Order: sequence, then structure tokens, then C-alpha cells
Amino acid sequence: MGEKVLMKGNEAVAEAAIRAGCRHYFAYPITPQSELIEYMSRMMPKVGGTFVQAESEVAAINMVYGAAGCGRRVMTSSSSPGISLKMEGLSYIAGANLPAVVVNVQRGGPGLGDIQPAQGDYFQATKGGGHGDYKLIVIAPSTVQEFADMADLAFELADKYRNPVMILSDGLLGQMMEPVDFKPQKTEKEMEELDKQHFDWCMHPNQDEPNHHHHEINSLEIDPVVLEQHVIKLGKKYEKITANEVRHEEYMVNENNEYLIVAFGTAARIAKSAVDELNAEGIKVGLIRPITVWPYPYQEIAQAITPKIKKVLVTELNLGQMIEDVKLAVNGKVPVEFLGKVGGILFTPQEIKDKIKAM
Amino acid sequence: MGEKVLMKGNEAVAEAAIRAGCRHYFAYPITPQSELIEYMSRMMPKVGGTFVQAESEVAAINMVYGAAGCGRRVMTSSSSPGISLKMEGLSYIAGANLPAVVVNVQRGGPGLGDIQPAQGDYFQATKGGGHGDYKLIVIAPSTVQEFADMADLAFELADKYRNPVMILSDGLLGQMMEPVDFKPQKTEKEMEELDKQHFDWCMHPNQDEPNHHHHEINSLEIDPVVLEQHVIKLGKKYEKITANEVRHEEYMVNENNEYLIVAFGTAARIAKSAVDELNAEGIKVGLIRPITVWPYPYQEIAQAITPKIKKVLVTELNLGQMIEDVKLAVNGKVPVEFLGKVGGILFTPQEIKDKIKAM
Amino acid sequence: MGEKVLMKGNEAVAEAAIRAGCRHYFAYPITPQSELIEYMSRMMPKVGGTFVQAESEVAAINMVYGAAGCGRRVMTSSSSPGISLKMEGLSYIAGANLPAVVVNVQRGGPGLGDIQPAQGDYFQATKGGGHGDYKLIVIAPSTVQEFADMADLAFELADKYRNPVMILSDGLLGQMMEPVDFKPQKTEKEMEELDKQHFDWCMHPNQDEPNHHHHEINSLEIDPVVLEQHVIKLGKKYEKITANEVRHEEYMVNENNEYLIVAFGTAARIAKSAVDELNAEGIKVGLIRPITVWPYPYQEIAQAITPKIKKVLVTELNLGQMIEDVKLAVNGKVPVEFLGKVGGILFTPQEIKDKIKAM
Amino acid sequence: MGEKVLMKGNEAVAEAAIRAGCRHYFAYPITPQSELIEYMSRMMPKVGGTFVQAESEVAAINMVYGAAGCGRRVMTSSSSPGISLKMEGLSYIAGANLPAVVVNVQRGGPGLGDIQPAQGDYFQATKGGGHGDYKLIVIAPSTVQEFADMADLAFELADKYRNPVMILSDGLLGQMMEPVDFKPQKTEKEMEELDKQHFDWCMHPNQDEPNHHHHEINSLEIDPVVLEQHVIKLGKKYEKITANEVRHEEYMVNENNEYLIVAFGTAARIAKSAVDELNAEGIKVGLIRPITVWPYPYQEIAQAITPKIKKVLVTELNLGQMIEDVKLAVNGKVPVEFLGKVGGILFTPQEIKDKIKAM
Repeated sequence: MGEKVLMKGNEAVAEAAIRAGCRHYFAYPITPQSELIEYMSRMMPKVGGTFVQAESEVAAINMVYGAAGCGRRVMTSSSSPGISLKMEGLSYIAGANLPAVVVNVQRGGPGLGDIQPAQGDYFQATKGGGHGDYKLIVIAPSTVQEFADMADLAFELADKYRNPVMILSDGLLGQMMEPVDFKPQKTEKEMEELDKQHFDWCMHPNQDEPNHHHHEINSLEIDPVVLEQHVIKLGKKYEKITANEVRHEEYMVNENNEYLIVAFGTAARIAKSAVDELNAEGIKVGLIRPITVWPYPYQEIAQAITPKIKKVLVTELNLGQMIEDVKLAVNGKVPVEFLGKVGGILFTPQEIKDKIKAM
Repeated sequence: MGEKVLMKGNEAVAEAAIRAGCRHYFAYPITPQSELIEYMSRMMPKVGGTFVQAESEVAAINMVYGAAGCGRRVMTSSSSPGISLKMEGLSYIAGANLPAVVVNVQRGGPGLGDIQPAQGDYFQATKGGGHGDYKLIVIAPSTVQEFADMADLAFELADKYRNPVMILSDGLLGQMMEPVDFKPQKTEKEMEELDKQHFDWCMHPNQDEPNHHHHEINSLEIDPVVLEQHVIKLGKKYEKITANEVRHEEYMVNENNEYLIVAFGTAARIAKSAVDELNAEGIKVGLIRPITVWPYPYQEIAQAITPKIKKVLVTELNLGQMIEDVKLAVNGKVPVEFLGKVGGILFTPQEIKDKIKAM
Repeated sequence: MGEKVLMKGNEAVAEAAIRAGCRHYFAYPITPQSELIEYMSRMMPKVGGTFVQAESEVAAINMVYGAAGCGRRVMTSSSSPGISLKMEGLSYIAGANLPAVVVNVQRGGPGLGDIQPAQGDYFQATKGGGHGDYKLIVIAPSTVQEFADMADLAFELADKYRNPVMILSDGLLGQMMEPVDFKPQKTEKEMEELDKQHFDWCMHPNQDEPNHHHHEINSLEIDPVVLEQHVIKLGKKYEKITANEVRHEEYMVNENNEYLIVAFGTAARIAKSAVDELNAEGIKVGLIRPITVWPYPYQEIAQAITPKIKKVLVTELNLGQMIEDVKLAVNGKVPVEFLGKVGGILFTPQEIKDKIKAM
Repeated sequence: MGEKVLMKGNEAVAEAAIRAGCRHYFAYPITPQSELIEYMSRMMPKVGGTFVQAESEVAAINMVYGAAGCGRRVMTSSSSPGISLKMEGLSYIAGANLPAVVVNVQRGGPGLGDIQPAQGDYFQATKGGGHGDYKLIVIAPSTVQEFADMADLAFELADKYRNPVMILSDGLLGQMMEPVDFKPQKTEKEMEELDKQHFDWCMHPNQDEPNHHHHEINSLEIDPVVLEQHVIKLGKKYEKITANEVRHEEYMVNENNEYLIVAFGTAARIAKSAVDELNAEGIKVGLIRPITVWPYPYQEIAQAITPKIKKVLVTELNLGQMIEDVKLAVNGKVPVEFLGKVGGILFTPQEIKDKIKAM
């Protein structure tokens, strides 16, 4: 690790992606993630990578499909409406078992909405905005440092499971500046090994290698029996990811807690301040922050519902989406309440404190 | 009601939509819903309506946005991958409080998948495949007659709440033929009244009417405070729909049930046969079929979990999607098990019987 | 004819097209022809016609292809860059022997250029901007009245020869207002007859009519021998049009002329003033104004090169395009000189007078 | 020069373009030029170049606009209908004074036509299929070797005049194999110099270089006076190209000729055989083959019309397009006759002989 650099989240995740070996990036501009595409447009040519500002978000995600099928680390990014346009393509990529990284710097919705931070795309990201049975691995940062670190994590998970990974960020993390530590750029040798790990399935990364030209990347299985086997295999992969890859953070979670807050991303960042202040006032409250929002830390939340817990509070920057997963985790043991903000407006720690006190 | 007509589901829903006053239809062809677009292409000119085969699904849904903004009954349809391409537009339409009807004749996924019936788009339809906080009203037929009847229901609900309504059907219901009773074509007077009910908000349906030209259909609210108020209003509308519009069917549900099956659409159709046979064998099992899958009959299912109920079985033509809503309804009271089929393959009544017996 | 109405050229041609029976119009907005699309958007619904603002110019011209294949009077319009996007589609429509009307309200080019009047698309219109051997019939108005009258003429010629017709106008004629006399709206009976004249080749205008469903509109003839016959037939049609449909205006053309000016459209309008003033000063000059710029009045110009003619002047709002056709007509008999203006700037009568005097 | 390699024309021109320093290529597949895009897709990554199969031909030509604006050697290719879709973009590129190379491997038209060789796009290429006053430099090969050599020539001319250059080939030259000599790959130093020659006008090829970030590539000049000056400058450039860059081949042209054949590309290749045989039979006939079809060798043809010449024959694989330029060159001195073939069918040397004899 070198010296920390003060950077916007959008730039930090782009720089970290390049260091992680991303050499293909296709996107279409949209606020509040434009610094990401701009950074890539400047840097990709310098590292011998490919940058294309595509004709549309639909074109961009299909370019991702192509590059991923060639076994290369490839990324796209957008903000909410632009991500919706990628739904068909994401279903294709997931269905074809391809690794790829997608960054959603969420803004207020629905529709064009506004350009302020929001968390209204939780359902889309975690339940499947595209058609059919597929799952994205979805990871949600709450600091600029974590946003940057997740670039590396996203590519590792994508390659490990040959599955698209979404970094579910928002306009606050995209726009704010914080000091960031970067991992070193992967060496040429490491880059080669990244490529080689896909040689047994991907399209001719090197046509001189024997046996490569018979690989096929396909999204259509017109024989239902073949498709059934394919989807069952997908299902088993999702079970494996669920068993191995749940990540969460516990903050002041202990046996004495009477209240538990569950929040992710920017909402969790604000909730932490509230938790600090509430405990200072003698109100025993812990915070669970899902880092993977799919697979979801159902068991981890369930275990935190100790006998002293009276109620659970879910705070989100939307009308209430993750609350369904929290309810599934709590499974009727204690009431689950909700505090939300919409329209790109953030709640304050005080609002969370007031809500907890009112409970 | 006249004499019953033997028709494919795709044609029946198209005919019923026309009788319900639909005069604008924009779509792009895809199997297994092609009979629907073909029917519309033949009939729309005959009734003075507008049919456009758009350049793409993205173009089609934006044409729907335009026609809906003019206060006209407008419909689009597609099958799974084509519906994914409409996600951005659906978020716009919902966010702008516009009435419109979307038919999804689901096929096997993810990706291109196959062209057989499936229910893999449940999450997309009910949780929100587009971005931001929005809700489609989603209704799921299980017979060709019900598919046709839902055209009228969909337009009524769309107009009542100024909200897009999705008919979540599948390739089986689209392709199979059953005898259908149609409501009569709306009279010219009724058609005029349909138009008039939107005159206080829609774009100049008649530019000679005073006061109409100042209406605005908008998807962008750059001021977060304005967007916040807008989304809060949307939330209140969704609460009202949830309070008023839940529809479900109970089949052999009674106090003696020891098992409860929950299934929708084509899966429920198959489950009914299994329920008949199981009860004939003395196994006390009832079936709840959600007709609206959003808003979801959480309370109705909760009430059916009488003390004698040992377990709940959810059967779906996917890897397990609606089961999350059933678990939210059951809320930990009894175990919830799952029987699914994927790839466009149907389960048989026998498979359901075996599963219940194994439970 | 009723009372004259003061109207912009863009609106006058739209109104006249509707009266001529145009009931399908597909386009994408662009200055300086926007009043045309706006007029159509308002009026088409009132006359039971179809208006679609397409996703793009490419989509619009392909919608024209579809409607023309159904034997209906259909029109599109745009300005220079938007017309370029229609080149592929125009080649399809011409190759498939389909009637359609395209209005080009030319602006300054190349590229985005500006939004002022110009005549830089002469080559594109007359020589064939699309690929392959095809010809548009191209007519060029020089007053608002003529612009309007040409809507009717264009549809008549399009139907007579089953060939696309372009009205090659410009931003001056589109934007200026002049009093216009309109022909009456075609009666219902006349409209029916318009439809019927295409029944022997077009796609099922009425599927209940026997024999209609076997018609085919096709653009691909993979067998070269079949394509050869097809293109030879096209060639014969173009010869027939050339023999029958050349139109031109002679202004002060007589045996005493020593100079001849050739100009079309807006340039001819300006040239007329110069011709008046020059003759008043005793300089014997006539003007030939091609009305059809394809087929071109080669013979008419050749005949005007009487023994007294010393030189011919071609004036165009471009760098020199029609001058090639004038030279082909003059065929070396006398020198042909050029006066042009570009960038959307008009020349004045004085500039033409100065040029003639300098000659 | 190394050993000759047996290659298809489509592949030879691609290989030669890479050796000439082309490192950016954007296109969409179409027969009969698909080997060109396939070759580029394989080779571009190996030489550190950028290959994008764009969403459409429209997208591809706009990507060319972008790369050309950055001062890089960039190419696209297609066949007739795909070239028509590039007309708007070509007008932009020409209007913005950008160097770029476009290959048209012509097929039979109009419309989809067939996939056999043809020369029906002569007008489009030479007169301007896009809008506004612009000129492509258009060069037409008649052997695979010349097709390959023209890649280098095209980039040289494009850079020298900052103007798009079209190689007007056809399906015969694209598909046939002949032995080809290639120039060596440009060295790294030569590549750097290629880049540097554009540094005074292009977009930041190296953002660390001072003064580069103020360059602007623009297609819109809303002030007509500015646009006028811009187009006049374009006109002067076209005059300079016309003065300097006309290229043609004379074959058996001498003072004794009684007949002159003018043909380009594949048609000239066939005509050569006929000329050989006719002269062997004592019929004195020469051949002029325009190599640049814009600028056109008007003077060179005029000079060949010696007093003994009785007639000129133009042979083209179309209904008669270049014949207009030949007539402009001959300027009425002797009759000009035509022999054409359409639909992708070639004439034989015998047919040319018969035509000459009939004259």
C-alpha cells in the first residue's frame, strides 16, 4: 500500500478496477456516475485497454457480454435508469455463466427521478430485475475506501463463480472524496494468470492455443430438457455462493442489545453515528450492515435476535425494500419497523435516534 | 355474453383488450406471444386504432409512455427477454402515474432460454425489475378465460389508480386454446367516457378543449424536495392499492386442512388436479391461488394457517421466487417447502402429490 | 378552391398531403422542418390517420416502407442530416417499387451544418444517396403555393409509377408564410379508390378480399438472375418516367436571349427578380427552372441553347451540383458558368446581375 | 517486400491497413465483406489495436468519427446497404475535415439486393450520398494486389488532406484470392510520427502534451457566416485534391485508337481481356481505367479523344452511372455508348467485344 490519495468514489473504483486487471470497459454517460466513465476514457488507452462509449446502455451491456465471453476482466457502470436498460443483458450474462462487474451509482427514482443519492434499486439488484432465475452477487460499499476495495473483490468473485457481480453504490459515495489506499497494479504475470484461468471455457483468447476454438458461449437452449439441466446447475451455483460468500459487518452488536438496526451502504454509514450516540445515552442498540446484499446474511441477522432484543429497525433510502429480507431473517420473532427517505434526500443520525426512541 | 369462442390465450387477451377500449398497441414480436401482436396488427386498423411494430422493445414501451400520457387505453406485450428491455420505460410510466397494460407471456430463462412456459419473471414483475420505488399491479391468470377477462380488469385498475398493470401469463396460457366468453365491445359513448375520465391530467386529447394544454407528463424532478413529495405520494397510492385490490382464490381451503399449497397461474392449474386427487385419497390439503401477485395476499395466506396446518408447499415454475412472499405471510408459524420446475418444463399433478406425501 | 390561407410552407405541404389522402406519417423532429411534423401530430388523429414520432430517422423510413407496402398514402419528412439517415430505407423502398413521399426541407451542411436554407442535397436526391441503381422522382418547389401543390403531385406520381417521390424544398420555403389555395379534401369515395388501385399488388389492405394474402413485398433476391430481371425492369420504369414526367418552367425564354440562367427552387425564385431587372436594362436573359430535377429537363435546356446564346449561368445554393446536369444538357455547345452560395446564405438578385454582366 | 501470400481481397486490404498503421476499426458484419471484419476482429487485439463490432452501421461510423477526431488511423467497412446507413456519419466526418478510411465491398442492389459483385454505388460514392457539399476521395481497385495497396494509399491521402477516403471495391475483389505482396508493418517510430502529424488539430492524443486540450472537433456552425467560410474552405480543399490527386491507368491507348473504353474496378478487369482480343483482331481500341473515381480523370479522358476516335464505350456493373462523368469529359465530341450488367452478374469479354463490333 502506498500513500493515501484523496479521490471521488467514482474515480477510486475505476482506478481500483484497472489495478485489478480490468482492461475492457463499455458504458454510456449518466450523472452521478460520470466521473467513472470519464476516468476510464482517460486511463484505458494508457494501460493498453479498451474503452468504448457505446451507442446506448443496451449496446454497452452486450459489449460486456462479448468481452466476458472472451475471458477478460470487463466492467460497465451506470446509474439507476441506465442500469434498468441493462436488465436483459444482465440476464444473458448471468445465464451464460460469465464473469463481469457492473457498478450502479444509484440516484433518486423512479423514472428519470433526480441525481441525488438513493437506494431504490435494491430489489432490482438482489431479486432480479431481468427475467428468469438468475442471481447477481451484489456488494454494497459504505465508504469510498470500501467502494475501491470492492472493485478487486468483485472481479475475484466474478471469476471464482463465473457470475456477474454488481457493486451497489449510490450518488453520495460516487461524488464524495475520501483518502483511498490502493492495492498495487497486477503484474504482467498476474494478468496472464487471470487470463489463463478462463482458458478451459472462454472464446479463443489466443487462437494459437489448441482446443480453444470449440468453446461456445450461448444463451439459447431450445431443448427444454437441456435448459432444465442448465438452470438446475445455475441453482446449485447460487446455493454454493450462498453457503460461502455472505459478508456482513457487526457494529456494537452484543448480548445486551435491546434494539438492532439493519442498514446497508450509505444508510448504514449514517446509522453508525446514531448507534454511537444512542449507546452513549445508554440505549443499547447494535447495527448489522450487510456487505453482500445477495447472498443475504439471513442467518447472521437471525443469530443477532437474542432474547433481549425488543425490536428491529430497518433504515433505507427508499420506501422499504431490504426490509423484506430482514423480515425473512427475523421470521416473526420480533417486530420489524422501518425508517426511510426518498427522493435523494438523506436522513440524519438524529432522525434515526428519534425513531429508535419512539420504538 | 355471446357464444363461447375457441381461441388461443394470446388472441383472447388481444380481443378482450380491444373490446375494453384499447386503441393503441405498440410491440415487437417474440415467441411465444407472437399471436398477440399478430392479432393486434390485423384488428387495430379495423377498429380505428393504432398498431405500431416498433423498432425495438425499448421503442415500444416509450410509445406506450406517450400514448398513456394522452389518456388513451394503451397496451404492449412481449415475452421474458423482451419484457426485460422494457424495465426502464416501466419505471418511467409508473413514476409518472400513467395507466397502461403490459402482458408478459413468460418463457424459460434466463437469457434467451427457450420458448416453453415458465414463471421465472415473478421477482421482476412483483418486486420491481426497473429502478426506484415503484409498483406494478400484477395479475396472474390460470385459464384462457381468465387471461381474457384480465384485459378488462387490467385497464380498469390501470385507470382507477393511474398505474401500469402487468398481466403475468406464460407460454402455456398463450398457446393453448379454450372456449372464451367475451364481454361486448364498449360502445362509442363508453369509449368517450373512458377518455373523459383522464381530461383533468392528460395531454390534450382534444386541443379544442380549454385548459388542456397546460398539463405536463414528467419523469424528472431535479429538486429532491419535490421528488421526495412525489415518491411519498406514490407510496401512499401503493398502500391504497394494497388495502383495496388484493385478489385470491381459495380451493378446498377449510379448517380441516393439514397442508396448504400456494401456487399461481399455470402452476396453480396443475396444483388443483393434485389437490382433488389428494383429498380423494383422504389427505386434507387446500390451495390458495394469488390472483394479484402484487399486491400480495399476505393476510389471506396468514389466515389460512389454521392450527391444524403442518406445512405449506409452494409450487412454482422456477427455482423459488414467490416462496419469499409466502414465507413473509406465514411469518415463521409453520415450515414452508418448495417444489419447482425450470427450463420450460411443467410438473405433473403426480409430482405434487408425491411431494405432499413426502412432507 | 376556397379562400387563400396564410401559412408556413411546412404546414401548407402537410395540410395538402392530408387533403391528398395521406393517412400515415412517420418522422423524427429536426429544424427547419419541425412545423411539418408538429402539424401532422395534431392533424393525423383528427382525420383517423396514424402519426408516429419514431425512435429515429432510420425507424421512420422503415415504417414508411411498411405502410407503403400496404398500399396506403404515406409520407415522411426531415431536413438534410435526417434525410441522410434514410438513405438505406429509400433504396429499399425504391427497389421494392413502393409509392411514398419524402419531404426534404434542406438546411446548410455538410454534417450538422446550420439551420438556414440550402440546396446542398441535390446530388443526394437526384443521383442516389442510397446504394444500387434506383431513382427517386424529385420535384423542387419555389413558392409556398407550389410546395403545397406538390404534395398532391407527389402522391399522384408515386402511385402512378409505384416509386418514391421526394419534394426537395429548403428552410426558406419551409419557414416563410405565403397565401395558399388548397384543393379540397379527397372524399371518402376517392379515398377508397386510392386504396383500391393498389389491391393487385399490396399487402392485405382488406384481408377478407380474396387473393390478397399471397402478395409479397421483398427487398432481397438472392438469385442474381432474378435480381437482374428485377433491376432491368426498374431501369425500364425509369426510362418511362423520363419520357413522360419532365416538368420545367421557362421564364422570359425566347429566341433573342443571349444568356440563359438555370436554377431550381429558392435559387430560381431569386433569379427571376434578376432576370426581370436585367431585361429591363436591355440584357437579354432567360431563365429555365427545372421543376422535376429528376427526371431532368436535358432536352428542354438543350433546345433553349439557340444560336444567339453566348453563355449559360447556373446558380445554386451550394458549391455546384446541378451544374453537372446542365453541362450534360449543353453538351459542350457554349460555356457554362457558376454562381453559388453556401452555409445557408442566399445570394441577392444584384449578385446574379453582376455575375451576368461580368460574363 | 517479402514473399507473396495467397489471400482473399477482404483479408488483404485488412492486413495492409494494419501494416499502414490502422489501429482502430469499427464495423457491423455484412456479406460479401465479412472476411474483412473477421480478420480485424482477430488481428486488432494482437497489435494492440481496438476492434469493436458496433450495435449498427450508424454506431460504427460515429465511432470512426470519434477515433478520427483523436488523430488515429481508423477504418470501417461494409457492403452496399450498410454503407447507405453510414451516409449521415460520412457527411459529418467530411465536413469536420477528418481523415478516415471506408471500404465498400459492393453487392447487387438496390435494397437488400443480393450478395454478388456490383458497381451500383458509384453515384453514392462519388457524388455524395450524404447531405451537403462534401467530397470523399474515392479509389477503385481492380486486382487483389491493388485492393491491398490502396489501404496504404487511402490512409496517406486521408491524412494529407484530412478527408475521408473510400475504397470502392466489390464482392468479386473481396472474395477472390490472388497472390499479394505486402509492404512491411510500419515501425514504432513511424507510428509515432503518424500520430504526431495530427497534434496541431486533433483531440488530446496525449493529454500530458501542452496545448492539446483546446482543440475542438465540431460539426455544427450555427452562424451562417462562419459556416459559409467553412464550406468555402472545404471547396478549396476539393479543388486542390482535384488538381493533385487524379490517378488513372491507360491500357493500349494510342493515337491509332478508333474506339475508347472507359471502365473502373472489376468491369475494367474484364474490359482488359476484351481490349487484348479486339486489338489482336485488328480493331484499334484503348482502355482508360479511372483509379480515382473522385477526383475524376476528366482531362485525361478528354485528351484521349483523338481525331480518330469514333465512339466511346462505358462499361459498368450497373444501369449507367459513371457514364455521366465520361460524357462530361467527352463534352459532346463523340457519341458515348453504354454496356451494363446488373443484379450481381458480370459481363464477359465476349459481350464487350460484341458491343464494340456493333458500334
